[in-house]
Amino acid sequence: MTQYHCLTFLTDYGLEDAFVAVCHAVAFQITPDLRITDITHLIPLGDIRRGAVVLAQAVPYFPPAVHVAVVDPGVGTSRRGIAVAAGDALFVGPDNGLLSVAVAAAGGPVRAVSLTNRALWRDTTAATFHGRDIFMPVAARLAAGMPLDEAGDPVEVSGLVALPQPQLVLTGDGAQVEVVAVDRFGNAQLSLPGADAPRAGLVPGATVTLSWDGKTTAVPFVTTFGEVAAGDALCYRDSGDWVAIAVAGGDAARLLGLQPGTRLTLIVT
Amino acid sequence: MTQYHCLTFLTDYGLEDAFVAVCHAVAFQITPDLRITDITHLIPLGDIRRGAVVLAQAVPYFPPAVHVAVVDPGVGTSRRGIAVAAGDALFVGPDNGLLSVAVAAAGGPVRAVSLTNRALWRDTTAATFHGRDIFMPVAARLAAGMPLDEAGDPVEVSGLVALPQPQLVLTGDGAQVEVVAVDRFGNAQLSLPGADAPRAGLVPGATVTLSWDGKTTAVPFVTTFGEVAAGDALCYRDSGDWVAIAVAGGDAARLLGLQPGTRLTLIVT
Amino acid sequence: MTQYHCLTFLTDYGLEDAFVAVCHAVAFQITPDLRITDITHLIPLGDIRRGAVVLAQAVPYFPPAVHVAVVDPGVGTSRRGIAVAAGDALFVGPDNGLLSVAVAAAGGPVRAVSLTNRALWRDTTAATFHGRDIFMPVAARLAAGMPLDEAGDPVEVSGLVALPQPQLVLTGDGAQVEVVAVDRFGNAQLSLPGADAPRAGLVPGATVTLSWDGKTTAVPFVTTFGEVAAGDALCYRDSGDWVAIAVAGGDAARLLGLQPGTRLTLIVT
Repeated sequence: MTQYHCLTFLTDYGLEDAFVAVCHAVAFQITPDLRITDITHLIPLGDIRRGAVVLAQAVPYFPPAVHVAVVDPGVGTSRRGIAVAAGDALFVGPDNGLLSVAVAAAGGPVRAVSLTNRALWRDTTAATFHGRDIFMPVAARLAAGMPLDEAGDPVEVSGLVALPQPQLVLTGDGAQVEVVAVDRFGNAQLSLPGADAPRAGLVPGATVTLSWDGKTTAVPFVTTFGEVAAGDALCYRDSGDWVAIAVAGGDAARLLGLQPGTRLTLIVT
Repeated sequence: MTQYHCLTFLTDYGLEDAFVAVCHAVAFQITPDLRITDITHLIPLGDIRRGAVVLAQAVPYFPPAVHVAVVDPGVGTSRRGIAVAAGDALFVGPDNGLLSVAVAAAGGPVRAVSLTNRALWRDTTAATFHGRDIFMPVAARLAAGMPLDEAGDPVEVSGLVALPQPQLVLTGDGAQVEVVAVDRFGNAQLSLPGADAPRAGLVPGATVTLSWDGKTTAVPFVTTFGEVAAGDALCYRDSGDWVAIAVAGGDAARLLGLQPGTRLTLIVT
Repeated sequence: MTQYHCLTFLTDYGLEDAFVAVCHAVAFQITPDLRITDITHLIPLGDIRRGAVVLAQAVPYFPPAVHVAVVDPGVGTSRRGIAVAAGDALFVGPDNGLLSVAVAAAGGPVRAVSLTNRALWRDTTAATFHGRDIFMPVAARLAAGMPLDEAGDPVEVSGLVALPQPQLVLTGDGAQVEVVAVDRFGNAQLSLPGADAPRAGLVPGATVTLSWDGKTTAVPFVTTFGEVAAGDALCYRDSGDWVAIAVAGGDAARLLGLQPGTRLTLIVT
């Protein structure tokens, strides 16, 4: 029976209320020696895609863990709660696509259950706080070694909700891509894996012409920010090994008008 | 001798300075195996009522614990520092009403002491940082099993400062209530316990006419947000089982102009 | 072989991305029983001086620990990564002055190494995320008892980058000082240690005439905020025992127009 010593937690609950602490408390009551790592609780309200991307960015660095994520505008409706096994991890949350990017990155879903075993829930279950009443109690028990099957009825992994893949076309002289995430620094991560960058011609020394929303600019493809002058835009492989756009010492997303979902054409010369 | 394995911490210290970490460090030095759970440190500066409400929202979900709360605009004046036993928990903080809502919810104060035992304080005590120099050192020792009496002189629990009760009148065809708290989602929690909702006629299917600040609107009383269209206001029993007002997919407090202290008349039809 | 049970972490990574959690995860994988205390991750982007000051404010309250700090606008350039022994602590981060204020406060650097031992780094090292790939893996091993020498090549402590000392001149009838930090409450900490205040004439009962940016105001030197009326400015020894300027119940920095680096003349009468 696997036992996970680590549980991660990602939500859009914010930090000004007691929601996050209450979920921690519920988990401690069930599995006292659990280590909980908060990934972030500042996902914009209801922004499932942002939550999915940030979760996927974090998961690869953790030891085998139970990952609980709750960005759940449909809480209390018919959307299912699920637990999914993928790679060496378990994922617990709403079946609205939030888990899907991380699950895919972990190798895809192997098994999944719908969280229908009410004996594991808190005695009274609020329609609006499944994080506290369902996801965290179930996850704390899974972390303590409870088999996945006990969490509820098996579901076909092919039927799990997955977010649409962001645009990615390699065009021979570049790529058609999409901004997937913008971080605190204003760096814009694109839908192009770093490993595919060379096939798109993106190698150190190349110049990339970016076109989006009627705008065009040419930037160098570099290894470090230090290769350009402060204030200059650049293209690079970021710390998660995705192709990204940045401005040295500046906020590329703001300066260039990029946001998640913005589509760009990259032409390499 | 009771030993608490959990200490919670709520303040208005914010997250951009080192205040919170310093308090953690002081506690660790005294009780190294202590688990500290931060409830929130984003209580608006000096907002005792908000701190009191959020503390009371969190406490019921914790195992027996020492709860330290510091929202203390009178730090360094004659207001007392106190430790209060209530239910299976201890509460430590300023005697300014901050602890009173949670203490009442835990069954009321059973015993209390004024934190006069200077031997437990840090050697040098700043007039402006009792969280670090008095509350946390005392709380860490209480968590380790020190009897409450050793923290200082006993005080009459009837003399502890308590916040005024928010307005709550059941009127036969509804209630006169007050907004107690607004959360990150903009949901407005009222002073009416969910358990009393049926006596006010608030049952699923009812229509509630809300009147406040010269405004009036009629909303359905529902069990889940999914019962109304996106953007519609509603009344419901929230996750803490208080009657609350929300807007499906929206920010009720902003859209309706509600804030803590806003008084409303509810008429049920 | 010293073993540290505590690791602290201060950055400008913010709380909305997964950066902080990823660093925690990397450390746990190396030293599973490590306790990590986050000091703050809300240092303004690239503000080395602010990071240095907040780190120095926090360190004295910790037991022997490994302190990891990353405010690193030069990441990926030729600036060194370093580990420095000072007092009973180790400091790990970029050699850009960020560590220097805390190291000096801990008694000055005793030994230092450049983090050149790549065997300790993560297998793939991103040019833009040394916190994850170099600083945290090295720090987690140091916390587990790895000797400092194994982290890399020794460097002369005299060659470490140190921030310039803020202005401090005792003038006989007062002092010429500088605002070093502004906290959440708007209190402005000056470059004058509390221990030196009496030599500048700053004793309870004194009146201090402050002059800065063409403005002048006279305020009392007090022990507690309660000695002045709400809204009045005051001078006092703050909780870190530095001379500071505050407004009772208000935001001194905003009301008086003070910010880090603002130079003031204090004349005591």
